[in-house]
Amino acid sequence: MCEANAYIIRDGDEELVMEAVDKVEPENDGLRLVNIFGDQKFMHAHIHALFLVNHKILIEE
Amino acid sequence: MCEANAYIIRDGDEELVMEAVDKVEPENDGLRLVNIFGDQKFMHAHIHALFLVNHKILIEE
Repeated sequence: MCEANAYIIRDGDEELVMEAVDKVEPENDGLRLVNIFGDQKFMHAHIHALFLVNHKILIEE
Repeated sequence: MCEANAYIIRDGDEELVMEAVDKVEPENDGLRLVNIFGDQKFMHAHIHALFLVNHKILIEE
């Protein structure tokens, strides 16, 4: 499976916000993250970068 | 390996723009895509959605 972990950049550090993310959908004022279990999380943030081979989604506010 | 294919939505269709994408980096006016071979492509587009389990990045202009 090729899900990724989502981290938010805060004060220069990367803080895990959700594991096993499958879907990421940018919306008007943020991002909807959905993991492989169907759990959803809405973040007032945008995508900073994706590193898919490393299973990593970096977001920032 | 967990790279994904990037498709751009044009006229309601999905057109393949790059295979085996590893890194995606939003920049001021677009997206930089880098595949596992190190090839780079800059697109004047933004991320529409990610479907990582399906190895799919959807972008749109």
